[in-house]
Amino acid sequence: MSQEHEAQLSAAVTAVKNRKIKNVYFVACGGSMASLEPAQYIVDCELDIPSFVYSSNEFVHRTPKGLSKDSLVYLTSHSGTTPETTKAAELARSKGALTVGSSNVIDSPLWKALEFPIKYEWGEEAAPDISKTGLMYRFLYSFMNIVSPNEKYTRALDIIQNKMKRVLDANHEATLAAAKEFGSSHKREELIYTMASGGCYGEAYSFAICLLMEMQWVNSHAIHSGEYFHGPFEITDYDVPFMIIKGLDQTRPLDERAHAFCQKYSKKITVIDAATFDMDGICEDLRGYFAPWVVGHVLRQYAVELGEHRGHPLSVRRYMWKMEY
Amino acid sequence: MSQEHEAQLSAAVTAVKNRKIKNVYFVACGGSMASLEPAQYIVDCELDIPSFVYSSNEFVHRTPKGLSKDSLVYLTSHSGTTPETTKAAELARSKGALTVGSSNVIDSPLWKALEFPIKYEWGEEAAPDISKTGLMYRFLYSFMNIVSPNEKYTRALDIIQNKMKRVLDANHEATLAAAKEFGSSHKREELIYTMASGGCYGEAYSFAICLLMEMQWVNSHAIHSGEYFHGPFEITDYDVPFMIIKGLDQTRPLDERAHAFCQKYSKKITVIDAATFDMDGICEDLRGYFAPWVVGHVLRQYAVELGEHRGHPLSVRRYMWKMEY
Repeated sequence: MSQEHEAQLSAAVTAVKNRKIKNVYFVACGGSMASLEPAQYIVDCELDIPSFVYSSNEFVHRTPKGLSKDSLVYLTSHSGTTPETTKAAELARSKGALTVGSSNVIDSPLWKALEFPIKYEWGEEAAPDISKTGLMYRFLYSFMNIVSPNEKYTRALDIIQNKMKRVLDANHEATLAAAKEFGSSHKREELIYTMASGGCYGEAYSFAICLLMEMQWVNSHAIHSGEYFHGPFEITDYDVPFMIIKGLDQTRPLDERAHAFCQKYSKKITVIDAATFDMDGICEDLRGYFAPWVVGHVLRQYAVELGEHRGHPLSVRRYMWKMEY
Repeated sequence: MSQEHEAQLSAAVTAVKNRKIKNVYFVACGGSMASLEPAQYIVDCELDIPSFVYSSNEFVHRTPKGLSKDSLVYLTSHSGTTPETTKAAELARSKGALTVGSSNVIDSPLWKALEFPIKYEWGEEAAPDISKTGLMYRFLYSFMNIVSPNEKYTRALDIIQNKMKRVLDANHEATLAAAKEFGSSHKREELIYTMASGGCYGEAYSFAICLLMEMQWVNSHAIHSGEYFHGPFEITDYDVPFMIIKGLDQTRPLDERAHAFCQKYSKKITVIDAATFDMDGICEDLRGYFAPWVVGHVLRQYAVELGEHRGHPLSVRRYMWKMEY
């Protein structure tokens, strides 16, 4: 099984070597799109190659002029049945772009549309290096190491394969009590804002639209920490709940400033601070890039506990899976 | 006065002619940033030159690798005193990028930081062609006409100078009754979601974070119409208010799909449909690009009327202008 992942990843990486990539598009929907945002952040900081995140249907309907045979398009869908993402892959491929992506299901529509599909494992028992996130980052660091070789990308690959399991498990355990407390104290809230910046913004978005709005029917909105002071902060009041995510990358000062202000006027702040995480084994200079992965892992637990206290399991839906739309 | 605007705009356009622009960054905060999003949308659809929107402090703290002397950076701040945007301009200029931008205040900090500042007029009596939006689009179409000459850009420039005043006035008047009805029917709502896609997404964002959250202390979130089905739609219920903006560009089918679903399950939908606007004088092929401008103009009126019915003028703040942050 594991050999299968390796062969698929390796084929995608080899394909990059034979191309001159001019731009990179990360394309997916909802939580899948959010999972690609930290990747775009890393490329944006590291490479002089433009990169973009698109919601699949936006990409399909108003295809960016820059999409060409020199583009790398990375797409992902858990079931591989998201029609918009499948169409986006078909469109990109028809333009001659290199299409790489992942799904949990081999031979799903997205799988068939991709030139280089990679199967990932799912669930608590899935090893991080063959999980959706792990394989995406392994492809990403391998890609960057080809277009702009750097020893730190080799270290990043080693961390994914040899260190992340312990880091994820340790932080899962270390934040369980706080997650339970969050679930209990927030079970009657009808709205919870999230806030983050930089590489962690996608995690705040994902928590807002998937875990809170979709899976808990709790109103939410992911506020960018830098944007907070330019409009949203006026909503802050003693009884307005905020979940503030503080990352470890270059935009941490934005999160710190938002936190410092918000805690003066709201009595309902929950802070997920990556600086308190156990990041042993992850090189100091790479922690900013790995923080979103750990944040996402921890946040899921917060949602599970919230669902537990609200008697509303994360799997409940009223529209999805129940009708055509 | 008018000659002054023309000289400033002309200097910026001439500067573009003498450069080989490799990428474009639109940088500002909050509502100012949102006002640049339709511009980025147009560039993304029209040119094979990558373009990006950044909130100023994100740009300052984790400067994209692509920023160079071959970059065009467009920045805007109404008062010209937004420190993050001024810093962003200084940073871009220090990297040798071409900095162009606008402010309502000559000799403000942003004004001094920009290589090519353009003064815009403000308020109800300001002519559209020398308003913030008008001057930004005039620069944009002139820029595009230099790097990829096309007669439609010349037509767009003509529309801004000779047609937009009538179009904005006509739609302002035509939507007044609906805006009053919105204000009355929504005055007790504590949360109103907005929804849009494509070139209009920035207007939905602006209405959510500035007009509702900042100026009305009403909870909100700008949902992308394409993302709606991948999480947010599960929050839809009979008593959840949505303001759905339907544009005229290529992503209109996304708005239509979201509207069709949403109206089945929410009884509190307000639709701002650009297809119902009086767009006489605007060429058919350019209406998609001009719709966000009209939408923004109309939306402001909805906010004014909401404030009227809530006894909460748009000018009221609790933090802004009252303290350091």
